[in-house]
Amino acid sequence: MRRRVGVWLFGARGSVATTTIAGAAALNHGSPPAGVVTELPAFASAGLVPLDQLVFGGHDVVGTPLLKQVERLVAGGVLPVGLDALITAELAEADRNIKVVPDSAAGQDAVVRRMAEDIGAFRLRNDLSHVVAINVASTEAPYDVQVAGPAELRTALGEREVLPASSLGALAAFEAGAAYVDFTPSTSIRPVAVREWAIEKGLPYGGQDAKTGETLVKSILAPMFAARALPVHAWSGTNLLGGGDGATLADPRAAESKSISKERALAELLGDVAGDVHIDYVDPMGEWKTAWDHVLFSGFLGVRMTLQFTWQGCDSALAAPLVLDLARLSALALERGHVGAMPFLGFYFKDPIESTEHSLVRQYDELVRWVHSC
Amino acid sequence: MRRRVGVWLFGARGSVATTTIAGAAALNHGSPPAGVVTELPAFASAGLVPLDQLVFGGHDVVGTPLLKQVERLVAGGVLPVGLDALITAELAEADRNIKVVPDSAAGQDAVVRRMAEDIGAFRLRNDLSHVVAINVASTEAPYDVQVAGPAELRTALGEREVLPASSLGALAAFEAGAAYVDFTPSTSIRPVAVREWAIEKGLPYGGQDAKTGETLVKSILAPMFAARALPVHAWSGTNLLGGGDGATLADPRAAESKSISKERALAELLGDVAGDVHIDYVDPMGEWKTAWDHVLFSGFLGVRMTLQFTWQGCDSALAAPLVLDLARLSALALERGHVGAMPFLGFYFKDPIESTEHSLVRQYDELVRWVHSC
Amino acid sequence: MRRRVGVWLFGARGSVATTTIAGAAALNHGSPPAGVVTELPAFASAGLVPLDQLVFGGHDVVGTPLLKQVERLVAGGVLPVGLDALITAELAEADRNIKVVPDSAAGQDAVVRRMAEDIGAFRLRNDLSHVVAINVASTEAPYDVQVAGPAELRTALGEREVLPASSLGALAAFEAGAAYVDFTPSTSIRPVAVREWAIEKGLPYGGQDAKTGETLVKSILAPMFAARALPVHAWSGTNLLGGGDGATLADPRAAESKSISKERALAELLGDVAGDVHIDYVDPMGEWKTAWDHVLFSGFLGVRMTLQFTWQGCDSALAAPLVLDLARLSALALERGHVGAMPFLGFYFKDPIESTEHSLVRQYDELVRWVHSC
Amino acid sequence: MRRRVGVWLFGARGSVATTTIAGAAALNHGSPPAGVVTELPAFASAGLVPLDQLVFGGHDVVGTPLLKQVERLVAGGVLPVGLDALITAELAEADRNIKVVPDSAAGQDAVVRRMAEDIGAFRLRNDLSHVVAINVASTEAPYDVQVAGPAELRTALGEREVLPASSLGALAAFEAGAAYVDFTPSTSIRPVAVREWAIEKGLPYGGQDAKTGETLVKSILAPMFAARALPVHAWSGTNLLGGGDGATLADPRAAESKSISKERALAELLGDVAGDVHIDYVDPMGEWKTAWDHVLFSGFLGVRMTLQFTWQGCDSALAAPLVLDLARLSALALERGHVGAMPFLGFYFKDPIESTEHSLVRQYDELVRWVHSC
Repeated sequence: MRRRVGVWLFGARGSVATTTIAGAAALNHGSPPAGVVTELPAFASAGLVPLDQLVFGGHDVVGTPLLKQVERLVAGGVLPVGLDALITAELAEADRNIKVVPDSAAGQDAVVRRMAEDIGAFRLRNDLSHVVAINVASTEAPYDVQVAGPAELRTALGEREVLPASSLGALAAFEAGAAYVDFTPSTSIRPVAVREWAIEKGLPYGGQDAKTGETLVKSILAPMFAARALPVHAWSGTNLLGGGDGATLADPRAAESKSISKERALAELLGDVAGDVHIDYVDPMGEWKTAWDHVLFSGFLGVRMTLQFTWQGCDSALAAPLVLDLARLSALALERGHVGAMPFLGFYFKDPIESTEHSLVRQYDELVRWVHSC
Repeated sequence: MRRRVGVWLFGARGSVATTTIAGAAALNHGSPPAGVVTELPAFASAGLVPLDQLVFGGHDVVGTPLLKQVERLVAGGVLPVGLDALITAELAEADRNIKVVPDSAAGQDAVVRRMAEDIGAFRLRNDLSHVVAINVASTEAPYDVQVAGPAELRTALGEREVLPASSLGALAAFEAGAAYVDFTPSTSIRPVAVREWAIEKGLPYGGQDAKTGETLVKSILAPMFAARALPVHAWSGTNLLGGGDGATLADPRAAESKSISKERALAELLGDVAGDVHIDYVDPMGEWKTAWDHVLFSGFLGVRMTLQFTWQGCDSALAAPLVLDLARLSALALERGHVGAMPFLGFYFKDPIESTEHSLVRQYDELVRWVHSC
Repeated sequence: MRRRVGVWLFGARGSVATTTIAGAAALNHGSPPAGVVTELPAFASAGLVPLDQLVFGGHDVVGTPLLKQVERLVAGGVLPVGLDALITAELAEADRNIKVVPDSAAGQDAVVRRMAEDIGAFRLRNDLSHVVAINVASTEAPYDVQVAGPAELRTALGEREVLPASSLGALAAFEAGAAYVDFTPSTSIRPVAVREWAIEKGLPYGGQDAKTGETLVKSILAPMFAARALPVHAWSGTNLLGGGDGATLADPRAAESKSISKERALAELLGDVAGDVHIDYVDPMGEWKTAWDHVLFSGFLGVRMTLQFTWQGCDSALAAPLVLDLARLSALALERGHVGAMPFLGFYFKDPIESTEHSLVRQYDELVRWVHSC
Repeated sequence: MRRRVGVWLFGARGSVATTTIAGAAALNHGSPPAGVVTELPAFASAGLVPLDQLVFGGHDVVGTPLLKQVERLVAGGVLPVGLDALITAELAEADRNIKVVPDSAAGQDAVVRRMAEDIGAFRLRNDLSHVVAINVASTEAPYDVQVAGPAELRTALGEREVLPASSLGALAAFEAGAAYVDFTPSTSIRPVAVREWAIEKGLPYGGQDAKTGETLVKSILAPMFAARALPVHAWSGTNLLGGGDGATLADPRAAESKSISKERALAELLGDVAGDVHIDYVDPMGEWKTAWDHVLFSGFLGVRMTLQFTWQGCDSALAAPLVLDLARLSALALERGHVGAMPFLGFYFKDPIESTEHSLVRQYDELVRWVHSC
């Protein structure tokens, strides 16, 4: 019996979502699966849903057709020349599965209900065995959630504004029986009440804040200093980025969410280390991102040494294959009846849920072990 | 009962050996053990010989007093200002344990015998429970060894020149009942006949070519690309170095030994990757080394991205604490009666003996497992 | 009366030539003239031929249509998406003006005559007031020319092979009454006999080896160290490049021509400085080039400091606007009746003819002065 | 007749002043004058006061002996090992010429008078033909000066606090007949009233904010983009620095003074360019400074390219020889009777007084012309 998995994207017309949807189509047309971890041999026998059985839908606040977004990404060097013409049909199909975020005037409980209905309809219409909802919307500012448990939350939702948009999306996913993964550092599943809601529904959740650039490199490099007993005195970083993500992070409150995620890994890997992390919005960078990091450490008898790195990448192109991975892996968790946090996905995140392991290699090994654990 | 371990250094008056001897003395005066891996908590209960129970000796072709070398390294910024005055006594003691390499005119079997006698005398005079010999001499040019087994080798040694200096040192160590570790990419224990000689004597050996800079970073970074399924198209590197090591490597034949070691790790971690590795002797760099690496890889749908790093370090200061580690770990292997290759020391080497694991984190985990395996 | 200038390109179907021809067409369609120095205000009143009055032709050994080359450069990110469709007509027109390099079997004098006839026919057919020939063909290996003056050369050409292809092109240009500029480090106008040939014909020549990347940056940076009295001890560089130019330079003999040009500037700006320059062919770099330079210098009382830079550019896109500049400036020299070397074009070259000035700012000022000198 | 020049340093016990005084002594003991621009051949016949005829004094708020500061700088790798012992006598002599900044309780007019008396006594005691006062104290926060001209200022000084410390120092210098140069971006000579005070006294003044690192490199690199017509879209920079200067700049108000100076050059060289400049205090950097700059520009037809540089230097060692230069050049201005601003010193400054030229090479040429103009 054929098994199809739905991938419901919050922020479904943004750069990451567009690259994910266009990329999945390109893979079905024969592109090699660069960056898709679950296509590595280590995952071959795991029984993951095939990539061509993923069906895309989602919510967004804007209505720009995906084709238009794809053309923009082709011109920006993110997607290959000629791809737009090749995958017009797939883009049109996904367009039909993308709904506008409901108006918040009717109250937050109504928003959750309406979004859950959208997800449910998507499941029925496409005959899906499972749905995984993934938040790839813009980073929100930190939000102070005041409710303690699911019961209190349920009441409060009908009365006043108690949650930010990302958390409403998470609740909608759970109401619709979907797994939920937060690709961003937004509030979403941070509140205990939201997590307990998932557990009551018997569903898994994961996140947060995918590591695709500077933090990815940090999480591979920092263990070197630890293993070699080289004291790191200062780790300084500057991130230059344009595009939608850059513009969002030009808002200092959203940048705050991001910076907190970014710094957690280093602190847990190396302890207390001096140095700032800057996130600069540089509009002419377009979809591209450059990170420069400077690590000051000492060797034997205190002699000072440095390691610097410069990372130049395209965030959407780094993120999109990970979205495909997370969809497949969360679908597997659903099939296995996993309930609650998915710490075995820590490999993907700056701020891994219920995990303090930040060494990329150990996170990878943990993921592979989980995949083969049943 | 007190247990003292002898550390016999081939190249005992060079920068690495001098920094090792001076550094061990500085640690005994209270310097923090930066860079000494075996001082990490993970090794605390392993029963390694205490650092202050290491006794240093060795062979060298020159006779410059260690104090003079220490003064040079202080002026070059490798050792801290004032150290020379603090450790004069320890340097003088080590000076007495360093012997001149015997004249080769008497034949290679005589050289081996004389060197083994020097090591044996060192053991007796200092009341040592074990001796570990470590080769930190200049990198040799590749040498084509023509003998097949220990028996044939034994005969040939008395008749003609069949081995380079590094291999004679290894044989001398084995004759004196010492473990042997090659910190360089020289011939030493590469020939099967030399390895079998160690096994006949029931002794352990390890190496080769300690990773202290560019290759160290490669061995931590390359697994990131592998784990994230990011195809690496080209990895190019340029190493600028001065000092004695730089001058040696300005000889293209010695550089050849080095380059072969350096490239093995990358090939085994990432498969076939384009790109050259340059080793440039830049005299004014003094004891310092700078490596710049440029990695060209692709992300999703083939979009090109890069990672560059610049490593600026002082080789002697990176190497010396590892020499201390290798002495302690090899002494443990001797105590445990380990015979033959020590692949669990792969963490330290570009070209790890009898091991194809090059991921630094996995090598570290393997080392910790071995240490606690008895 | 309308004044049209012909630009005759040796290597007319290569990346530089294609980008030049396509770019000139794009400018005529309204692209801003980024990189075209002669469009700066300082050149506004100089009476240079307008860019839309340049007509392109040339020689090449291959027959690939320009449109095909343009499509390749669009896919490689050198030319903007959509340009190919916009300028099909201009490419077809230039295609008609490009001739195949004559067969060398008939003797070198016949080759020169045939090429000169091609240039003459181009001039007549397009009603051109002046023609400037510019060598943008692949870098040749060094060539030892054995003839002393034009008379001897004239005789020898009829008898045997005495010149490389680049010099035959220069002679053909002079025979056709064209100015000649060498954009490469090839032999071309190096031999005295070739230069005197130009002078006999009353024509100007210029070159050699356009500075578009590492050397450009060197020629701006080195004067800083000189002006600030900071002694430079070593200047090391690594160039990674793919594309046609990279493949050519993978031939060590061609690389030799290049390296000699590259090193002249530094020696004349800073005196004797240690350090190597590597030119590595890295096929997956495509049309892109990365240069990393490491400068070791000392400040007050000998304290060591460093400056490193990484330049990432696309050679064709850096070269093409300079080809347009050189065509316009050489046409002005022709109009002014300038005969012989054009040292005032040193701003453009690594190895400026009859000039020892390598400071980019001073070269620029010299160029502006010359332009306004009549 | 012997001509001795006094160099009066505000901040006379800081790192820059200490390195200047120690360095001048080292030069008199035979160290080569690296970094001293006025020792270049271009200045040989200018009649500048010999370096061994400079006599040092100054004001400071602390009393730490210079020898102690020198020992600290030797341990930090700024000054050569052994220098402290060599120049003890010279340091003691300078110590005697350094006075404590007068207590401000007596009113600002009294502070100016007392400081001027200190400078006058220094001149008499050392039989100096001229005195040049140079501000090398910590950067102040911006200060809003409310008085319009010297007359109003003179009255106000007796009544209330109207000027920051740097400006009081400038007035004291003028009262004592000394030239004044501001090496920092502090208020000092910014107020018109202070400048007019100098003019009334017939004295020269110069500044501000010496360029010794990132801005120095910017002022040499930016003219390349301008001369090559390459549009710069964004120029981003991160400065990591420790030491006293870093700690001062960790105060956002002082950093503000610095950033304004830093950005002026770029704006005047390249027009409006995106990108931030960060100044991060990283305590473990000690006296060292690292700047990373990322320049995003486009070439022909808008293709994006980048230039990055990393500068690693020691500020004191870069600054000290310039202090010597400024002392000699200002003494020459005094001899020539120059009154008012010294725009010909723009070569040394981020924010050159009464000059809009920021191209380092042109500034150098202007300086050399001025030196030889009489």
